[in-house]
Amino acid sequence: MTEQVAYLNGEILPLSQAKISVFDRGFRVGDGVFDTARSFRHKPYKLREHLERLYRSMRYVRINAGIDIDELEKITRQVVAHNAKLIDERSDLWMTQVVSRGVYNRKVGITASSATVAVVTEPINFSTFAKFHRIGMPLITPSIRHTPPECLDPRLKTTSRMNLHMAELEAQGHDPSASALLVDLNGNITEYTSGNFFIAAGGELYTPHEKTSLAGIARATVIDLAREQGIVVHVADITPYDVYNATEAFITSTSKCILPVGKLNGIRIGSSIPGPIAKRLLTAWSERVGVDIVEQALWHLPEEDRRRLDAAAVAA
Amino acid sequence: MTEQVAYLNGEILPLSQAKISVFDRGFRVGDGVFDTARSFRHKPYKLREHLERLYRSMRYVRINAGIDIDELEKITRQVVAHNAKLIDERSDLWMTQVVSRGVYNRKVGITASSATVAVVTEPINFSTFAKFHRIGMPLITPSIRHTPPECLDPRLKTTSRMNLHMAELEAQGHDPSASALLVDLNGNITEYTSGNFFIAAGGELYTPHEKTSLAGIARATVIDLAREQGIVVHVADITPYDVYNATEAFITSTSKCILPVGKLNGIRIGSSIPGPIAKRLLTAWSERVGVDIVEQALWHLPEEDRRRLDAAAVAA
Amino acid sequence: MTEQVAYLNGEILPLSQAKISVFDRGFRVGDGVFDTARSFRHKPYKLREHLERLYRSMRYVRINAGIDIDELEKITRQVVAHNAKLIDERSDLWMTQVVSRGVYNRKVGITASSATVAVVTEPINFSTFAKFHRIGMPLITPSIRHTPPECLDPRLKTTSRMNLHMAELEAQGHDPSASALLVDLNGNITEYTSGNFFIAAGGELYTPHEKTSLAGIARATVIDLAREQGIVVHVADITPYDVYNATEAFITSTSKCILPVGKLNGIRIGSSIPGPIAKRLLTAWSERVGVDIVEQALWHLPEEDRRRLDAAAVAA
Amino acid sequence: MTEQVAYLNGEILPLSQAKISVFDRGFRVGDGVFDTARSFRHKPYKLREHLERLYRSMRYVRINAGIDIDELEKITRQVVAHNAKLIDERSDLWMTQVVSRGVYNRKVGITASSATVAVVTEPINFSTFAKFHRIGMPLITPSIRHTPPECLDPRLKTTSRMNLHMAELEAQGHDPSASALLVDLNGNITEYTSGNFFIAAGGELYTPHEKTSLAGIARATVIDLAREQGIVVHVADITPYDVYNATEAFITSTSKCILPVGKLNGIRIGSSIPGPIAKRLLTAWSERVGVDIVEQALWHLPEEDRRRLDAAAVAA
Amino acid sequence: MTEQVAYLNGEILPLSQAKISVFDRGFRVGDGVFDTARSFRHKPYKLREHLERLYRSMRYVRINAGIDIDELEKITRQVVAHNAKLIDERSDLWMTQVVSRGVYNRKVGITASSATVAVVTEPINFSTFAKFHRIGMPLITPSIRHTPPECLDPRLKTTSRMNLHMAELEAQGHDPSASALLVDLNGNITEYTSGNFFIAAGGELYTPHEKTSLAGIARATVIDLAREQGIVVHVADITPYDVYNATEAFITSTSKCILPVGKLNGIRIGSSIPGPIAKRLLTAWSERVGVDIVEQALWHLPEEDRRRLDAAAVAA
Amino acid sequence: MTEQVAYLNGEILPLSQAKISVFDRGFRVGDGVFDTARSFRHKPYKLREHLERLYRSMRYVRINAGIDIDELEKITRQVVAHNAKLIDERSDLWMTQVVSRGVYNRKVGITASSATVAVVTEPINFSTFAKFHRIGMPLITPSIRHTPPECLDPRLKTTSRMNLHMAELEAQGHDPSASALLVDLNGNITEYTSGNFFIAAGGELYTPHEKTSLAGIARATVIDLAREQGIVVHVADITPYDVYNATEAFITSTSKCILPVGKLNGIRIGSSIPGPIAKRLLTAWSERVGVDIVEQALWHLPEEDRRRLDAAAVAA
Repeated sequence: MTEQVAYLNGEILPLSQAKISVFDRGFRVGDGVFDTARSFRHKPYKLREHLERLYRSMRYVRINAGIDIDELEKITRQVVAHNAKLIDERSDLWMTQVVSRGVYNRKVGITASSATVAVVTEPINFSTFAKFHRIGMPLITPSIRHTPPECLDPRLKTTSRMNLHMAELEAQGHDPSASALLVDLNGNITEYTSGNFFIAAGGELYTPHEKTSLAGIARATVIDLAREQGIVVHVADITPYDVYNATEAFITSTSKCILPVGKLNGIRIGSSIPGPIAKRLLTAWSERVGVDIVEQALWHLPEEDRRRLDAAAVAA
Repeated sequence: MTEQVAYLNGEILPLSQAKISVFDRGFRVGDGVFDTARSFRHKPYKLREHLERLYRSMRYVRINAGIDIDELEKITRQVVAHNAKLIDERSDLWMTQVVSRGVYNRKVGITASSATVAVVTEPINFSTFAKFHRIGMPLITPSIRHTPPECLDPRLKTTSRMNLHMAELEAQGHDPSASALLVDLNGNITEYTSGNFFIAAGGELYTPHEKTSLAGIARATVIDLAREQGIVVHVADITPYDVYNATEAFITSTSKCILPVGKLNGIRIGSSIPGPIAKRLLTAWSERVGVDIVEQALWHLPEEDRRRLDAAAVAA
Repeated sequence: MTEQVAYLNGEILPLSQAKISVFDRGFRVGDGVFDTARSFRHKPYKLREHLERLYRSMRYVRINAGIDIDELEKITRQVVAHNAKLIDERSDLWMTQVVSRGVYNRKVGITASSATVAVVTEPINFSTFAKFHRIGMPLITPSIRHTPPECLDPRLKTTSRMNLHMAELEAQGHDPSASALLVDLNGNITEYTSGNFFIAAGGELYTPHEKTSLAGIARATVIDLAREQGIVVHVADITPYDVYNATEAFITSTSKCILPVGKLNGIRIGSSIPGPIAKRLLTAWSERVGVDIVEQALWHLPEEDRRRLDAAAVAA
Repeated sequence: MTEQVAYLNGEILPLSQAKISVFDRGFRVGDGVFDTARSFRHKPYKLREHLERLYRSMRYVRINAGIDIDELEKITRQVVAHNAKLIDERSDLWMTQVVSRGVYNRKVGITASSATVAVVTEPINFSTFAKFHRIGMPLITPSIRHTPPECLDPRLKTTSRMNLHMAELEAQGHDPSASALLVDLNGNITEYTSGNFFIAAGGELYTPHEKTSLAGIARATVIDLAREQGIVVHVADITPYDVYNATEAFITSTSKCILPVGKLNGIRIGSSIPGPIAKRLLTAWSERVGVDIVEQALWHLPEEDRRRLDAAAVAA
Repeated sequence: MTEQVAYLNGEILPLSQAKISVFDRGFRVGDGVFDTARSFRHKPYKLREHLERLYRSMRYVRINAGIDIDELEKITRQVVAHNAKLIDERSDLWMTQVVSRGVYNRKVGITASSATVAVVTEPINFSTFAKFHRIGMPLITPSIRHTPPECLDPRLKTTSRMNLHMAELEAQGHDPSASALLVDLNGNITEYTSGNFFIAAGGELYTPHEKTSLAGIARATVIDLAREQGIVVHVADITPYDVYNATEAFITSTSKCILPVGKLNGIRIGSSIPGPIAKRLLTAWSERVGVDIVEQALWHLPEEDRRRLDAAAVAA
Repeated sequence: MTEQVAYLNGEILPLSQAKISVFDRGFRVGDGVFDTARSFRHKPYKLREHLERLYRSMRYVRINAGIDIDELEKITRQVVAHNAKLIDERSDLWMTQVVSRGVYNRKVGITASSATVAVVTEPINFSTFAKFHRIGMPLITPSIRHTPPECLDPRLKTTSRMNLHMAELEAQGHDPSASALLVDLNGNITEYTSGNFFIAAGGELYTPHEKTSLAGIARATVIDLAREQGIVVHVADITPYDVYNATEAFITSTSKCILPVGKLNGIRIGSSIPGPIAKRLLTAWSERVGVDIVEQALWHLPEEDRRRLDAAAVAA
């Protein structure tokens, strides 16, 4: 079988057959949650932590998946095991569980007959972000604010993400290669559109409070690695003033692990890409997982691009 | 053909074949907009106004449906024409257009190859709300607040509706027959989970500002009917204090038109269901569309239920 | 003498003679402060801490009681000594000091001739809450928000408590056995209507910042007991997301000491009542005061009720 | 009988016997509402409007007085009729209804056995404010903010008024003759500690929105009188910038009717006391009630004070 | 004399001699106010209205210029009369009064010996904005919010404008030709960095409330002209959703009068530049002042640029 | 040379010749930053820390001074060296760098040709505050709120300080000897008009978070000295409730180092001036710099004043 498979509501199917009803509340009214882990060397990484967060999300939105965490873990591993064979050895996979409240049941208010549960994988899109390991990501603080906890808890990983899309569209309207770094209603930085945010100053790291952003698992890994390396990590209120004056900045995400930030609102941050702390942490993380994280990403670029990037890289 | 049809991405299909990819951004990350009109006597009502609002939503979220409003209107009418034949003469249809940004395209940031456009219908679920014409809906102000405009404009009809689901779940956790009446970050009432809100005091109507809620087309109809009837309508800040002391309250929505509110947070509102103004407006609206709106809803209940309701009705 | 006594403005009187003028600013415009301690085995517990908080309240609202803290302590002990004789040995007393600005003096602005100072006791109403030791209290987050510090410092123990009554009325409108768990203008949990709030997660305790709620003396006792037991206590921002995913939750108050929470907004919290940490803390506190806190409360229920509760108890 | 009488819980008593239990929730936890009207020439003025507002307050806080509005009006008139005989012909009375939830009933949560209903009168304290008719009241915007509607609706006339006392104490700490003019959380002026606020600019009047302050009955009278006089009244957001640049400012209250404001935060407002519009409105109001409002107030001052004020008066 | 003159503290001097002390509070701590009018055909336009606003600003910040409005008007006319002779007949002048609290006086707190009063003119920089009459200005909503009235009243025209500079720098960091369109803490549009903002929808105009932005005199002119033309003007809350869906948008400012907006955040607004309403208003304004406003601006561009713009113009 | 010198744009000049253009953006639109250090015994104290903060300010507002920090330090030392000779041995100097964006360049948007850089000194005005070492400063919380970080980061030391002037004017309108202690939009104390704020309670120090106020260098010194002395320092939210109940309070600033606070809003703080902790810290700081800080300040008062102060001093 050379087609990827997916799990959908009890069955493992060829991906092309994994289709959702147009009446699914996940499609119609964003009534779902999800989580995404990645593999290193084709093995799921911290899958259990991701699934535990998924079940916390479900509890908050009162969706009952109908299967327990152990079973969902088993299914995920099964789907990954199959699909990993279809990708290059130097690639890796995202693995995503999506759980929606299921097909609309107009008879019974907000509840639906039974949840839709899907498990899919995708090859990680290294080629779209690899260059930022050399030149740094551009970030922009959009005018759109992060949804506050009294409306929707930022720690919920819901599929209702239009607030984040609006932020990203605004940033990309200004610079198509940029991502949005959202601030909350009090002017504090929360997270970037797809992950968490760190800065360094005086040799120590600072990252926003977990309460205003998604409690990233990559963020937790970085905090853990930093402590191992003797680098102090402060969980703190951070504003653009701090970022402009930081010695370096980076984002963390499941697929990107750690990716250096080059500019915020056009102002260059720090003096090398990656900054010295990001470099140490990338090395430590690479050792932990047996994959050179930066090299894996860059390998997905055409040779010529890589050469050009090496030349353009912001030197230490 | 005895199966309903749906429109999906260029084709009119049997409903059972109208399926969405698990990678559709509408399903995965709530990246879509929609609008829903209804029919009266199987004819679309104010369809153009709904479509215009849909195109305003698309413009705000920068989704290009790939077809223009005239074409989408034609398709909708075609789907309705077919599906209306399959329902009882005394029933009517919802007709919904859903437009998502389409299947994920990991290569190109937030954009996707091309939008997903679906048009579907559903028989209106009169039986779930008909009784409230006699006893009034119970509403509850949940602790969850309505998302503010600096995060997502309340006038956008997005499929990312988890904020509203959380409000509704909280209300139904207290009383399974209740709906949520949301307040904004300043303590003003905005809208109920599926439509707009009016109160009467001193013989005049009050409804929240359009800016904090969806600009309902049923709401516009009510304002229009009220003016015809010589009833003054104030667009104003409204708090629970106003509701508790109102002489009547009602909600408006596409399918329900006007539905009396019986209680807010357990406190009875007004002294009859419907209140005198709601009654006049329901009559006027019924005349306009040639359907007795209340009778149509009640007709969907078993005979016995109707009798019981008549007995229980809150007398004037 | 078989009637309880009270202290009022310099005299110790039979309770039935302790009456307040209808022109007292405490009655007319909520212009007062108070504090309430309890006894264990008929002895005042942490009375001095309560009085110190009372004097901090007075300082904030610029009321001069006209007597110093030592004298007020002596009076309180005197009133307790008398009234304790009138209650069952297994009961205990609340002892409350109320200090208002006194009778209105329309000549001189906000000031009044001299403060009204009252000291009263009441038998603790164990029978109203004892059952929650077995089945857990139901809590509800109302739509009413906690008054913010820029309007009135939450640490002030004023008699102007209408904000809290409105919250409680809203919760009890949904479920007559429930109490309100208030959130502040930023969506963070503050306190329940009559005391503080704790959750447990990962074997550690979390309680809201003192700045957004009353700095409870029972809360301080719990923090102290927890530290003795080697349980880490975090003072932190807490939202409903945290509560839904907590392993247990409980409230603290002067009379109830520690009382397990069963549900928030209808969602069950944790898997046993009390949770394992509440259990350890109740044991430690009971040892400290020589009273089995849970047994004392349950003893006030009819035998039959106690049996029914034991059956209904949420098992570990 | 030469002693004033009061009504308390079903009886009309000599005032000295009208006493409240120390366990009354009105005294202990500010759990009450009230309203105050005044007499002109010993006749109640707009008593019914005040009572209607009182019943709206009761509805909001779910207190049932146990007697209806007609009966409470009758009682009030009876108390006034008696007490008016005891005051000078040129004086007038305040008449106040206080309704608390009654004596604490620890068995049944927030409810109490039955409401406490009191009706009392007091001679209006003209001598404390009369001079401001000549020199203008000093107002101060304190740092304390007005409680927002999401915590307690500003239109509720509750006895829990500590927020207002704190504002007044702060103002009087700066200037003992000043009162507080409160602003809300958005920086807009709401009301002064005991009434509403107006400014004039360009020959038209401006007063804050009813939603952020108590809907004063004197305020309604002024709006009505102004319209009769052809003076446009705007209900609008007002900030200190508007006040500093106003041509005049005044407050309205039940007892004071209209009282000119001399200064805000030490900056003189307008060029004469009263301003030309206040003067016209005072004349019109005086005609309506057959009492020269300004003269009545000044008559309560010693002759010498009146002379000194005439000299000090801020000339047109 | 071929050098421009300026007025400074009592003297009319050659501009090169009009210098300020490094200890002037205007330079050192932004402690000043200003206002700027323009000429049409070398005659001051609405100079008195600008001066009245300047005196309102002074009153708010308690600066006493030491000269009255009549004198300052006379001085301004004198400076303009001289300097206008030095510019081309088809050009016009800005005329600015700056009033600071004067040179620091460390002995006496915030007060200074005496105010610094300067009157200067500058030729209007038509060449920097003329092209936008053909292609429309690009606007960007920055993440920086407009200072709220509780911090500094937006109607004050202070020299402390760093909040606006930060907004402009952020916008120009994204697009060097763009200006910032600021939103307030509630997500409503206030003003652009140097003037007011209007949109059209349904043939009517909408502009933000005066309270959240500077009460522009050009804005007042537009409202006046629109009324003359029978165009309804709504003063309303406006969000980006409204702008994206508007049929046209324009800014107003002293020097630019009316300038069409081409895009907001990269989204094109309307279908022609200028839109039909802006066109009518520009014509009406031009007639009123006897200057073709658009032609005057374009005349300052090189011939070639004008030709290129005509080609690039966004057609109706 | 007996005149003070100043540095201005590349030259060291007699102070009387250091003049700024009326078109300088620093004067016209507050477009500048500054920092101020002081000398002890005529030697600059922590000059480098002040300059580092200045360069952080410049980075945030995107002003390029055109000279690097080392050069600016050298220039400052040169100016100080000259000017210090002109003051009494027992006096000391403020040294201030002001950097504005320079003279307006209307051609190129917000940028200007080149920055204006000035370095000046002033003798510290000890005589204006010395008495507070004996009687304590009076502070007032004004109704004006501190500008929030989403408008302008409080850590930026900009010359656009009108928000602070408005606060100070309001306080001094109430009491000419008072200064403003600002609170933020959440009701927390931030800083006083010219420095930071500390309170003591339970033998430990509390000071507001750096994020809501300027990160004072004197504040950092106090934290450092306190740690040396074994005094715990909490960085925390502080409200007026805390201050009223503190055992002492003091401010810190570059020139005043540590100055005791006597009252907040008329309420006396603590029981001696200075409080015991301020006393220890003043002693420690004096030793560190070889100057008796209190004596230096008092020495600038007339002998008679000093005697009167000693008599009036608030005793321990």
